[in-house]
Amino acid sequence: MTPFPFSAIVGQDEMKQAMILTAIDPSIGGVLVFGDRGTGKSTAVRALAALLPSIKAVKGCPLNSEKPGEVPDWAELGSKKTETLPTPVVDLPLGATEDRVTGALDIEKALTKGEKAFEPGLLARANRGYLYIDEVNLLEDHIVDLLLDVAQSGENVVEREGLSIRHPARFVLVGSGNPEEGELRPQLLDRFGLSVEVASPKDIATRVEVIKRRDAYENDNAAFMLRWQAEDATIRDNILKARKALKKLKTPDQTLHDVAELCLALGSDGLRGELTILKTARAFAAWRDDKTVTKAHIKAVAGMALRHRLRRDPLDEAGSGARVGRVVEDVLG
Amino acid sequence: MTPFPFSAIVGQDEMKQAMILTAIDPSIGGVLVFGDRGTGKSTAVRALAALLPSIKAVKGCPLNSEKPGEVPDWAELGSKKTETLPTPVVDLPLGATEDRVTGALDIEKALTKGEKAFEPGLLARANRGYLYIDEVNLLEDHIVDLLLDVAQSGENVVEREGLSIRHPARFVLVGSGNPEEGELRPQLLDRFGLSVEVASPKDIATRVEVIKRRDAYENDNAAFMLRWQAEDATIRDNILKARKALKKLKTPDQTLHDVAELCLALGSDGLRGELTILKTARAFAAWRDDKTVTKAHIKAVAGMALRHRLRRDPLDEAGSGARVGRVVEDVLG
Amino acid sequence: MTPFPFSAIVGQDEMKQAMILTAIDPSIGGVLVFGDRGTGKSTAVRALAALLPSIKAVKGCPLNSEKPGEVPDWAELGSKKTETLPTPVVDLPLGATEDRVTGALDIEKALTKGEKAFEPGLLARANRGYLYIDEVNLLEDHIVDLLLDVAQSGENVVEREGLSIRHPARFVLVGSGNPEEGELRPQLLDRFGLSVEVASPKDIATRVEVIKRRDAYENDNAAFMLRWQAEDATIRDNILKARKALKKLKTPDQTLHDVAELCLALGSDGLRGELTILKTARAFAAWRDDKTVTKAHIKAVAGMALRHRLRRDPLDEAGSGARVGRVVEDVLG
Amino acid sequence: MTPFPFSAIVGQDEMKQAMILTAIDPSIGGVLVFGDRGTGKSTAVRALAALLPSIKAVKGCPLNSEKPGEVPDWAELGSKKTETLPTPVVDLPLGATEDRVTGALDIEKALTKGEKAFEPGLLARANRGYLYIDEVNLLEDHIVDLLLDVAQSGENVVEREGLSIRHPARFVLVGSGNPEEGELRPQLLDRFGLSVEVASPKDIATRVEVIKRRDAYENDNAAFMLRWQAEDATIRDNILKARKALKKLKTPDQTLHDVAELCLALGSDGLRGELTILKTARAFAAWRDDKTVTKAHIKAVAGMALRHRLRRDPLDEAGSGARVGRVVEDVLG
Amino acid sequence: MTPFPFSAIVGQDEMKQAMILTAIDPSIGGVLVFGDRGTGKSTAVRALAALLPSIKAVKGCPLNSEKPGEVPDWAELGSKKTETLPTPVVDLPLGATEDRVTGALDIEKALTKGEKAFEPGLLARANRGYLYIDEVNLLEDHIVDLLLDVAQSGENVVEREGLSIRHPARFVLVGSGNPEEGELRPQLLDRFGLSVEVASPKDIATRVEVIKRRDAYENDNAAFMLRWQAEDATIRDNILKARKALKKLKTPDQTLHDVAELCLALGSDGLRGELTILKTARAFAAWRDDKTVTKAHIKAVAGMALRHRLRRDPLDEAGSGARVGRVVEDVLG
Amino acid sequence: MTPFPFSAIVGQDEMKQAMILTAIDPSIGGVLVFGDRGTGKSTAVRALAALLPSIKAVKGCPLNSEKPGEVPDWAELGSKKTETLPTPVVDLPLGATEDRVTGALDIEKALTKGEKAFEPGLLARANRGYLYIDEVNLLEDHIVDLLLDVAQSGENVVEREGLSIRHPARFVLVGSGNPEEGELRPQLLDRFGLSVEVASPKDIATRVEVIKRRDAYENDNAAFMLRWQAEDATIRDNILKARKALKKLKTPDQTLHDVAELCLALGSDGLRGELTILKTARAFAAWRDDKTVTKAHIKAVAGMALRHRLRRDPLDEAGSGARVGRVVEDVLG
Repeated sequence: MTPFPFSAIVGQDEMKQAMILTAIDPSIGGVLVFGDRGTGKSTAVRALAALLPSIKAVKGCPLNSEKPGEVPDWAELGSKKTETLPTPVVDLPLGATEDRVTGALDIEKALTKGEKAFEPGLLARANRGYLYIDEVNLLEDHIVDLLLDVAQSGENVVEREGLSIRHPARFVLVGSGNPEEGELRPQLLDRFGLSVEVASPKDIATRVEVIKRRDAYENDNAAFMLRWQAEDATIRDNILKARKALKKLKTPDQTLHDVAELCLALGSDGLRGELTILKTARAFAAWRDDKTVTKAHIKAVAGMALRHRLRRDPLDEAGSGARVGRVVEDVLG
Repeated sequence: MTPFPFSAIVGQDEMKQAMILTAIDPSIGGVLVFGDRGTGKSTAVRALAALLPSIKAVKGCPLNSEKPGEVPDWAELGSKKTETLPTPVVDLPLGATEDRVTGALDIEKALTKGEKAFEPGLLARANRGYLYIDEVNLLEDHIVDLLLDVAQSGENVVEREGLSIRHPARFVLVGSGNPEEGELRPQLLDRFGLSVEVASPKDIATRVEVIKRRDAYENDNAAFMLRWQAEDATIRDNILKARKALKKLKTPDQTLHDVAELCLALGSDGLRGELTILKTARAFAAWRDDKTVTKAHIKAVAGMALRHRLRRDPLDEAGSGARVGRVVEDVLG
Repeated sequence: MTPFPFSAIVGQDEMKQAMILTAIDPSIGGVLVFGDRGTGKSTAVRALAALLPSIKAVKGCPLNSEKPGEVPDWAELGSKKTETLPTPVVDLPLGATEDRVTGALDIEKALTKGEKAFEPGLLARANRGYLYIDEVNLLEDHIVDLLLDVAQSGENVVEREGLSIRHPARFVLVGSGNPEEGELRPQLLDRFGLSVEVASPKDIATRVEVIKRRDAYENDNAAFMLRWQAEDATIRDNILKARKALKKLKTPDQTLHDVAELCLALGSDGLRGELTILKTARAFAAWRDDKTVTKAHIKAVAGMALRHRLRRDPLDEAGSGARVGRVVEDVLG
Repeated sequence: MTPFPFSAIVGQDEMKQAMILTAIDPSIGGVLVFGDRGTGKSTAVRALAALLPSIKAVKGCPLNSEKPGEVPDWAELGSKKTETLPTPVVDLPLGATEDRVTGALDIEKALTKGEKAFEPGLLARANRGYLYIDEVNLLEDHIVDLLLDVAQSGENVVEREGLSIRHPARFVLVGSGNPEEGELRPQLLDRFGLSVEVASPKDIATRVEVIKRRDAYENDNAAFMLRWQAEDATIRDNILKARKALKKLKTPDQTLHDVAELCLALGSDGLRGELTILKTARAFAAWRDDKTVTKAHIKAVAGMALRHRLRRDPLDEAGSGARVGRVVEDVLG
Repeated sequence: MTPFPFSAIVGQDEMKQAMILTAIDPSIGGVLVFGDRGTGKSTAVRALAALLPSIKAVKGCPLNSEKPGEVPDWAELGSKKTETLPTPVVDLPLGATEDRVTGALDIEKALTKGEKAFEPGLLARANRGYLYIDEVNLLEDHIVDLLLDVAQSGENVVEREGLSIRHPARFVLVGSGNPEEGELRPQLLDRFGLSVEVASPKDIATRVEVIKRRDAYENDNAAFMLRWQAEDATIRDNILKARKALKKLKTPDQTLHDVAELCLALGSDGLRGELTILKTARAFAAWRDDKTVTKAHIKAVAGMALRHRLRRDPLDEAGSGARVGRVVEDVLG
Repeated sequence: MTPFPFSAIVGQDEMKQAMILTAIDPSIGGVLVFGDRGTGKSTAVRALAALLPSIKAVKGCPLNSEKPGEVPDWAELGSKKTETLPTPVVDLPLGATEDRVTGALDIEKALTKGEKAFEPGLLARANRGYLYIDEVNLLEDHIVDLLLDVAQSGENVVEREGLSIRHPARFVLVGSGNPEEGELRPQLLDRFGLSVEVASPKDIATRVEVIKRRDAYENDNAAFMLRWQAEDATIRDNILKARKALKKLKTPDQTLHDVAELCLALGSDGLRGELTILKTARAFAAWRDDKTVTKAHIKAVAGMALRHRLRRDPLDEAGSGARVGRVVEDVLG
């Protein structure tokens, strides 16, 4: 069945916004989606897959390379024609081994032909797309570490079993998690670009609307998909426009100053917060079709860019999100 | 020995009802049966096997495919004639490995012929039928996760050891468990469609009747099976009728509203509860041969659809089941 | 050395009775023997081996099949003559792996001939006999589970490593245990048919008698065996007679009512208790050469059939055995 | 270097006595030697090796078989001449695997000749001799269990990896242990025949004598060995005489009665204690060249036969040994 | 992307100083960089890579050997021409196995050619350069031990699997760590030469400057690199000059006396502290173009050379760094 | 680089004395060196290597056999010429496996030639020399046990994987340890011959001297080695003289009596203490060129021979060393 349409998701605006912004500028980094069970986290990610602009790629290339010259030797492709593909969205299955993630020695070739060939992994297939991890808090730390390393450097380096392979692996990491089932180390949290929280709607009309759409999607699929096609197409076009606008966008010095003042006031460790909020504000400005990044853009994205970088304050019951809000008001007015 | 007849089970009406409803609409999801030892949980599941309508399937197809065109390449079937088969009911043996469940590389072929062939697992064989797990609470979390993922998506994806296989795996999961021996994570509970509780009968006449029937089944099997054949056939026919009726059933907006109000009042997380109770009420209406889903149907199935989705309330001694009942009365009157 | 004669065991009447009753009706299920170290538990089981009636079986058949037509294909027997064998009594060695128990792929044939052959395990060899586990409480739970599953269904199903084998495995499980060294889960306890407790004799005359017989057995073996031959033969003949009588035995409704009332009064979970006490009382009646099962038979076997199924009552110092006795008196008078 | 002479060991009379008695009647069972570090436990066992009478055995037979007809097929011996060998004393190395102990599939033959051959283990080599375990309390329980099983049955049964081997393994187990470094389970303690305690001498003259002998042994070995040769030979001859006398020894009923009364008074579980004290008293009587087993013999060996079978009494500071002594005085006068 | 320029790093002077000093005299030993997340630790190490003087090395030699005669036999090089290479900086990937670190048997050659060949590891590739470990406190102790052993001896010895290989492995170890995520054993801390602490800047102007440079680096890379090229070149030249000056440097006896007095006053265990501070002061004097090592040089480097060698004093809240400062003032004035 | 000269080590007299005494009589047993980090423990052991007299050995023999007739068959040497070698000093690498220590099946030969060949381990290479273990308290107990067993018996017995090899392995074990990082079991402590404690010097002049020598060693190696050559040679000659003198040394009975009285007064368990102090006093007398072992020699070595054998007395803050001193004074005056 085709995924649920992105624009048909009821509410959850912050999550949708975060996904759109990383689609505009993937260098913002991954998105963490926190929320109770059943709040549509994985539905949203699968919806994003269908929404994203398609890409041009060499047919059969395990890296989805854009140009024939980028196909790696070990891919052993005959012809190198290009085709148009949906943006790849790769699912990291629960319990995936490091071999499966990074790629590994091709055992079959090793045994039958006696040669060391590389069998690419999920990181190769996610190149130029998205990598989705359900319940990222249940993953082993060293796999999360590895994923974030590669997501940040854009390159997968495999040096084991006599292999020495290095290939591009540029993707946006999207992780969903249920904070009740285990936490991520602060070190790892800090390396995700954005974080959003989702929750079940609390008013009946919204819930009825959700059920109705879901019901229509399941029982009258074709009509339902048609109904939302145009909305999805508009979002897709706007993402493409914003990508182009991004390069011409202006960032006044005052904006940098505001960003630094905000982060200092929040006491967020390190400088990743500042760089992320700057990039996110830019993507947001481009999406809003504004020409200059201003205080308003910073205020709009401060929550999703900083919330997960604060030290936990056990006396502050309202949580990190509310703290970001308060400080944004204090500092940026 | 042929299984015990479904209709000869004394009492345990809610469990039998839940099994019938998922037979009518498998998309309701799995059934969890909780209860003390010796209450006939596994007897009931095995009885269900014999009760279910038979299916048409390609002979020898590991997926029980309905049409020759659906037989996968890796099945390597010569002729593709169809035959009539009992609905498959697959038992998940205690300690089954992930390989055994999802299928894996056929080691024999790999060694003798040097080719990567797929050896289908229990998920393939359960396609179009039931998968039964005794003592689901003793299973490892990642296997339960995997089973629920596949049960929900209806597709088994195997991407390891150089294999890249994807095949339909549509089945209803039935799990039995003894709450005294370990609990399931709330995340997993929420992904089962229905839950029922069974207990030993407390009056002597019923117990004597149970012993008598069991005794007759063991010591006078042929006569006993004949005695209950007609009752089982009636249930089977009604299931088939209800399946057809389901498509024409009407769901008034008020019913959706009732469902949302009920779930909100119960504070059940997420929206899976709402969707499940709606589907279950529909299946129940179809089984009752009603044309429209009403408040009465919702009330009848609310317990089995919601009981296992509530947060535990340590002050509420009567348990989740009673809480659902009270709120149903308050909200739906 | 031939085993110690069953009839030469001094005292321990309940244990001997339980073993005789399961020899008459193996469907009663396994026997658990609890007791301190050195009370002759394993001696008794080995004695039982020599006592049991011999069986007719196809020569060399790994399943001890009675008829040539029952020999499985994978046994690869040439001729299929039958011979007379002692009832098989198989010892489950400490630390036996699941492979060893259920049978597994024959690695030798797989490597040398490249074919998947089945190498039967202990469950095959125990078919039509007894399987003895010393210190069952030290065994891993999943092995006990597996053994009880097979003991109950009478069939061993092996579905792994590309094998799909199913063979009869009808046997009585006898387990000995020392309650000081670890307990069985209630789930497992409930699946044993009978349980008995043994203890060292407390009067000097009996102890001297035990030492004398043991001493004679070790130092004057031939004479000692001859001395007890006739007693053992009588028991063996009576077992065979009782097996035949069992089929003609009458079970009045009042007896079923008594059984249900007793179990309800004891609060034993589930219905396994009722079915077991009924079967055991029948076997006892047949052994006593009675024609009808009465209250007296139920009273005689209630202890061994129910003792291990009660929930532990920490305030009841006398233990489960005494509780069964008291309730039997109250209910059956 | 040849072992230290048995008769040159200063003091430690009970340990030496226990070793001599099990040499006379190996069916008494193993000996446990408890004591502080450096008290000469392993020296004594190695000394015993040199003292024991030599045996006649088929040359090259892994089981040290006495007669050509007893050589197992799997030994693949060409000629079967007999030779005279010292009594085998096999050391169980720390960390020995189960394979190494019981024997296992001969991997080399399996790989090169494609046949399942048996490679015998330490239990085969210990046949007809002694098996010594240093620090038995550090061994894994399942290995101790296995060793005691085989020591008691006199037979090693290997049923794994497609092997089905059964060979005699009659040996006396000698274990040394330091009670400060871990205890044995009561179940295992009970299965050793005798136990003795050793300690460093507490007077200076004895200690000087020990150092002198040890010094002479190390620095003037040949002369020292010659000096003690005759004493060792006398012990050896007396062991051989006692073995013959054992068969003609008389055991009055009063002696059996005394044994039972003593064990009952001590509250020792089970009957292994009674059988062991009886056998040990007989061996002692034979060693003393007496014709009848009397109360005096029982009193002499009660400590070593029963001490390790008592339940620990935390209020009795003097320990199990003193308790045995007191009760022996009370009961036997 | 080329690494961030070393001289463009804002602030963090102590860290940059420590890296420069070990570049002048690698025998000072490794550098530990402690600090919160996001403080640019790994950026600095990667920047160092681009800054370091290039080396002359035999083309293709796995050890980066300077002269053809130093190429090991197992490298199996055909021609041995030299080329100019950047100083090697090797990254130790998270979860690297010991095999991967030290080198191991080349499995491919072993299987296909039946010969034992050596496949060099990360230690070989780091020869004559730097080995960088991110989050060294998360590494297993035995790997850290091994790395420090090799770093100190300058030689990697592999003696396993029948290999007996010994090759030069002279490198400087740089480890980064977050003290909140686990500590190193004092034994390991003591074996690092220097330690520095880094923190996020606390004034807005500096933070804005950091963001600006980072932003320029990412969005206008070529211009940014050009802008800092000259600064980096100057540092590189000064390092080369200091290396030469080092040999002619004078160390008055008073300086040795000052060093010993300082370490004794600080109560630092062992003598590694004294040797390290002496070497570091010398490198610093050479870097400052001074001809004699004086008290001033010692004071300048005392913190980085000694801070991590002090026993923790739980009453001294200011920490080891402040303690070193105070004692330096007291002792050296 | 050649090791640091033994005689250039500043202070640490007891450690140097213990090493010299075990060089005179290796049967004294191993030396344990306890001390803080950085106190030159491993420097001293490596210095000892260069100091020790050279040995005559068959060229290429893995056991360093003195005579051609002692070369084992499995060494497969062609010619058996002898050569002069430095005393072997073998380092036990951290994490060495049992295989690596004892030797193991040569896998390469097993695979390529199908024969079971022995690949000798570290114990073979240490024969006739020293085996050094850094941080012995971090080694696994079973490896320490094995090393001490072999060190004591002088023979390495390998009985696994179908191998049955026995070769001489006479060496002195030297272990260094940091008592803060884990303790050895008393059982293992007792089996080391001597123990010494080392500490950093506490006066400035000594520390300056240490730094100066170390600095000269590193920066002016050739001159420094020349400077200490003669001192080392003198020690070497004296060791050789003492070895010869040892055989003619007299041990009066009063000396034995003194030894026994001392050990009894100290309450040291077992008799290893007495034998060790006697041997050490003899070696010391020979080193001092005395003809008779007297009370003075015993007093001089009592500390290093007994300190590690005492039970810990928690009330005695001065530690075992001081206790030995006090009792020596009390008993020997």
